[in-house]
Amino acid sequence: MIKVGIVGGTGYTGVELLRLLAVHPDVQLTAITSRKEDGLPVADMFPSLRGSVDIAFSSPDKADLTQCDVVFFATPHGVAMAQAPALLAAGVKVIDLAADFRIKDKAVFEKWYKIEHTCPELLEEAAYGLAELNRAAIQGARLVANPGCYPTTMQLGYYPLLKAGLIDAGGLIADCKSGVSGAGRKAEIGTLFSESSDNFKAYGVAGHRHTPETSAQLQKFTEDKVALVFTPHLVPMIRGMHSTLYGRLTKDVTNEELQALFEEQYKDSPFVDVMPFGSHPETRSTRGSNMLRLALHRPDNGNTVIVLVVQDNLVKGASGQAVQCMNLMFGLEETTGLKQIALLP
Amino acid sequence: MIKVGIVGGTGYTGVELLRLLAVHPDVQLTAITSRKEDGLPVADMFPSLRGSVDIAFSSPDKADLTQCDVVFFATPHGVAMAQAPALLAAGVKVIDLAADFRIKDKAVFEKWYKIEHTCPELLEEAAYGLAELNRAAIQGARLVANPGCYPTTMQLGYYPLLKAGLIDAGGLIADCKSGVSGAGRKAEIGTLFSESSDNFKAYGVAGHRHTPETSAQLQKFTEDKVALVFTPHLVPMIRGMHSTLYGRLTKDVTNEELQALFEEQYKDSPFVDVMPFGSHPETRSTRGSNMLRLALHRPDNGNTVIVLVVQDNLVKGASGQAVQCMNLMFGLEETTGLKQIALLP
Amino acid sequence: MIKVGIVGGTGYTGVELLRLLAVHPDVQLTAITSRKEDGLPVADMFPSLRGSVDIAFSSPDKADLTQCDVVFFATPHGVAMAQAPALLAAGVKVIDLAADFRIKDKAVFEKWYKIEHTCPELLEEAAYGLAELNRAAIQGARLVANPGCYPTTMQLGYYPLLKAGLIDAGGLIADCKSGVSGAGRKAEIGTLFSESSDNFKAYGVAGHRHTPETSAQLQKFTEDKVALVFTPHLVPMIRGMHSTLYGRLTKDVTNEELQALFEEQYKDSPFVDVMPFGSHPETRSTRGSNMLRLALHRPDNGNTVIVLVVQDNLVKGASGQAVQCMNLMFGLEETTGLKQIALLP
Amino acid sequence: MIKVGIVGGTGYTGVELLRLLAVHPDVQLTAITSRKEDGLPVADMFPSLRGSVDIAFSSPDKADLTQCDVVFFATPHGVAMAQAPALLAAGVKVIDLAADFRIKDKAVFEKWYKIEHTCPELLEEAAYGLAELNRAAIQGARLVANPGCYPTTMQLGYYPLLKAGLIDAGGLIADCKSGVSGAGRKAEIGTLFSESSDNFKAYGVAGHRHTPETSAQLQKFTEDKVALVFTPHLVPMIRGMHSTLYGRLTKDVTNEELQALFEEQYKDSPFVDVMPFGSHPETRSTRGSNMLRLALHRPDNGNTVIVLVVQDNLVKGASGQAVQCMNLMFGLEETTGLKQIALLP
Repeated sequence: MIKVGIVGGTGYTGVELLRLLAVHPDVQLTAITSRKEDGLPVADMFPSLRGSVDIAFSSPDKADLTQCDVVFFATPHGVAMAQAPALLAAGVKVIDLAADFRIKDKAVFEKWYKIEHTCPELLEEAAYGLAELNRAAIQGARLVANPGCYPTTMQLGYYPLLKAGLIDAGGLIADCKSGVSGAGRKAEIGTLFSESSDNFKAYGVAGHRHTPETSAQLQKFTEDKVALVFTPHLVPMIRGMHSTLYGRLTKDVTNEELQALFEEQYKDSPFVDVMPFGSHPETRSTRGSNMLRLALHRPDNGNTVIVLVVQDNLVKGASGQAVQCMNLMFGLEETTGLKQIALLP
Repeated sequence: MIKVGIVGGTGYTGVELLRLLAVHPDVQLTAITSRKEDGLPVADMFPSLRGSVDIAFSSPDKADLTQCDVVFFATPHGVAMAQAPALLAAGVKVIDLAADFRIKDKAVFEKWYKIEHTCPELLEEAAYGLAELNRAAIQGARLVANPGCYPTTMQLGYYPLLKAGLIDAGGLIADCKSGVSGAGRKAEIGTLFSESSDNFKAYGVAGHRHTPETSAQLQKFTEDKVALVFTPHLVPMIRGMHSTLYGRLTKDVTNEELQALFEEQYKDSPFVDVMPFGSHPETRSTRGSNMLRLALHRPDNGNTVIVLVVQDNLVKGASGQAVQCMNLMFGLEETTGLKQIALLP
Repeated sequence: MIKVGIVGGTGYTGVELLRLLAVHPDVQLTAITSRKEDGLPVADMFPSLRGSVDIAFSSPDKADLTQCDVVFFATPHGVAMAQAPALLAAGVKVIDLAADFRIKDKAVFEKWYKIEHTCPELLEEAAYGLAELNRAAIQGARLVANPGCYPTTMQLGYYPLLKAGLIDAGGLIADCKSGVSGAGRKAEIGTLFSESSDNFKAYGVAGHRHTPETSAQLQKFTEDKVALVFTPHLVPMIRGMHSTLYGRLTKDVTNEELQALFEEQYKDSPFVDVMPFGSHPETRSTRGSNMLRLALHRPDNGNTVIVLVVQDNLVKGASGQAVQCMNLMFGLEETTGLKQIALLP
Repeated sequence: MIKVGIVGGTGYTGVELLRLLAVHPDVQLTAITSRKEDGLPVADMFPSLRGSVDIAFSSPDKADLTQCDVVFFATPHGVAMAQAPALLAAGVKVIDLAADFRIKDKAVFEKWYKIEHTCPELLEEAAYGLAELNRAAIQGARLVANPGCYPTTMQLGYYPLLKAGLIDAGGLIADCKSGVSGAGRKAEIGTLFSESSDNFKAYGVAGHRHTPETSAQLQKFTEDKVALVFTPHLVPMIRGMHSTLYGRLTKDVTNEELQALFEEQYKDSPFVDVMPFGSHPETRSTRGSNMLRLALHRPDNGNTVIVLVVQDNLVKGASGQAVQCMNLMFGLEETTGLKQIALLP
């Protein structure tokens, strides 16, 4: 059994990790820390876990995380970089669900996240945890940077097109939509039910932290200069993310060839579902599951290709992807503990 | 034109007052105070008001509310009692949307609201602002205590039955459901979209502040001892309140007589709609309007009578009712500025 | 492996059965019938099943259901009674998720369901599939009538109180609220998003088919005459059911005794969670899981006891409960394949 | 008083017309037709109208619409073209909320709407009812084609940019999102609450009827060849439309110049609100009102300009816009009866 610790279990990625790990056949939940909730049974905060999870939060100073085989950080940015070095030194693997190790360029990180990076020496080593494009590196990693939710959809959607040199890398437009849980479990007026229900809006159009992460990753797929316009929007639903990705085709290609390109690319990726050409994937078809589904469109058979990508932002976009990485890091089948079927309706 | 001031315009009852008063034909919005937002145009906080409301918040010390004819308090409990005496002394009428003057018994108020009442001498004078049952007193009042949202539905639903002595006053069960806006515009985890959407729960079953207010008012309608079980629930909708009121019939009465009793009672009340016997009123039929709708049921023609009552908790349950009171206090037609039709769908 | 057939897999209870059975370790999905969708892969209708369920619908005449060990009927009322006799004769067990075998009294059934019962000889044999109160009968049954969703909550909530003779059986009031999926996957205006979202209403107050089923079952628990007022409401959420059950205490009993009574009653029932006294169970704490959670309240320590009961209407209220019955009928652990944790948020 | 008739009052644009016209100071509701609902009081179908609208539906053969001054068609496509000629001949003005007269090219209309156009001779005469761009023509019109909801947002958003020749007309991308009421009041599975709530998806990406209408109108604004990619999505909210419009700048222009261009263009349009540069308009800021709000963005000050446009699809996107046209046709102030403030929250 893999002994697992979780730092920061009071947010949505934390409780989602608990939901997945509590029924994972190879995992033993060993510790979960929260400074504020020391001693509180986890199931008292999240009654959905009553009967399934019986451990309590412990304060960080009491919990001996070095006894764990792996520690997940479901924390705000900045926490993992402070604790990872000591854990790694003690032989504990680390998976960070925040952004601390996602961006290799220290200066870029510090510009966007407004904090100093305190262990830049680990940036190079950290594996970027997008299994579909980086499986080998994750398998051998001590430290994994779990990708952001939006970047996951944009990378998996654009990758085959950019790698094949089929679209203009300098004219990418990603119009993305997220459920409200993406904003986290924080007391804020903007995400109150009465503010965000029965409403739709864009946000952060002038600049979102997922832009530099995505741009840097997309740049790896092509030698052309990548320019990405990324427009996030807030959808009145709890879970779910839908990215509408536009690319300008620069080569002659048939729709069948486009479809075959994607099917070939993801044929060994159990969590990427390439739907028939012209499908309209729905976010609910991934609700609670680790599947990402995508479909290709080409309006009027013109020179614009559209990739529609959906996922559950808390599963494939966060905690499920982290467990997928853990499986790879410990030599397990990639799908272990992740076979939940989406809740529909 | 009536010069109107609003104290505390940053909450939901405040913005709702603005929506109604901005198009009220006899009102001139004169001042709106907020300590935190001094100088901010109201429409910057609430873009729905762009083009309709062009005044800015001013801090309480700058705003000279004594220039107003009437001041509405859309504030937390405790604010109106601090400012009302000076305003009244200056000849300004006061309508409090909070609880400061709803409960005549100082000790009961202090027990439930955990604050000392600082002007108990005004408790007796304050008119209880339920126009349908208290029209004359409101017309002559300087100070009006606007009723709570739940109490409005319970009083208008039980009143005809209690007054006619038809039900057991000692066995009232009110199972009530409210939209989330009833919790106010406060940054709290419990009312986040991701917490309260796609969910239903009871709350405050052990004791809710609207119980003593309602019990005291219901007691006025009967000489029998009133005992009320009031169970509030939270519905994943923004606006709307639905009260399911149960009463045990203690006398022989036909359904036709019950229906006639209600129709007669409310025939001169333009904002109470007695629907046909056996109807199922929907909250959305009152969304954005000052109408309260109700319908009677009697399962199996047995000895239980059910009154289904719906209203918009922010309009008839709060700001609309306050404007209705203002109309009466200033000798206007009761419906002036309140003829908006509910938004359906 | 248990070979399973499903009749009528195009509704919500059908797709929910598929979600649960596709990952059930002892089940082999063998046939799923639909007259209209013959030949259509199930996952084409429900993309959530892509990658998990690869069988297609077959028309009833083609599917040889007698090869199955058990057949679930996720059909409208009237279908199971037509097909069950032949299946039973062929040695196939039958679980009906509709109402055909829930009510023992043929006349009562026919009055409420407006169809003739065509195999009344099976009514007596059919086991009522509420495992918590009827485990032994289910274990030995060939034919199980899966309970209605509302009746499940009302029976499990009232049972301990009625059996112990603590409440007035003649004055039961059950104020119940259901998510919209309870209305099924039928094209109807009343359950359109634009009609039922941001809205709340009661329905069927004059008479709901779950009343006779519940009353008959509750009557088994007591010798006093049961009289039940049951008021269903529609909540703008997909899944979830919340029943607020009122009872008038007729004996002296402490809150601790009440709590102990429920804990003792359900201590061996893995799917009933008796929460601490005074809790407010939320429907989302059961979303997608087979757990039913309940909590007791006693306002003002008076003579009214309130039982708050929540469940997922499609799981414990329908398909999960049916799988729970199947487990018992085939000698499996009751919780096999039913350990999913609720999706929160 | 303008005598108004409505053909087809049982859908969402019909009931919305009733909401607006019932309180319009210059309108007398004279007739409302429905073949199916002959004799039914309108308020029986839409309880929100109880107390405000007291006429009943009449069957088309009984209603003498030639007594009206103007008739609105809130019907499926094809109805207005059948009845308009006779009404116009009788001197009655006609406003069609469907598509019958939106597309000047008969062949294009018939290709997209799959019905023959039976009065093509009126196509040229019909004024396109987008007051902001076509005010004079509407003022003098007998027959108005009310624009589609999506086309309204795309035209008002792209117009200033195309007219000034600032963007590449051949590379327009409009990523649009609509609330569910846009699908109408029709019994269909896809728009059930349980199907479309807590979900997000694109639809009609391969071709939507609003594309030819929009393209033809946009082409009027520029001599360059327009090519538009239009991607509609369905948002789990009742009302509201959000269009995210992308354009590639082809000339040097500052953000201040862009902003000034829009402010100048719409300074005399009371229902277009040009918000400050960089704002994020929310659909709810227009809920129930006839305002359309828009804001400009320019990510990284690069060569992509984004126009965010919001409106209530049933008001400015349909019935409100139709009333706005009526006001112009009858020489009234454009805003008469349309000053409702959006319902927020």
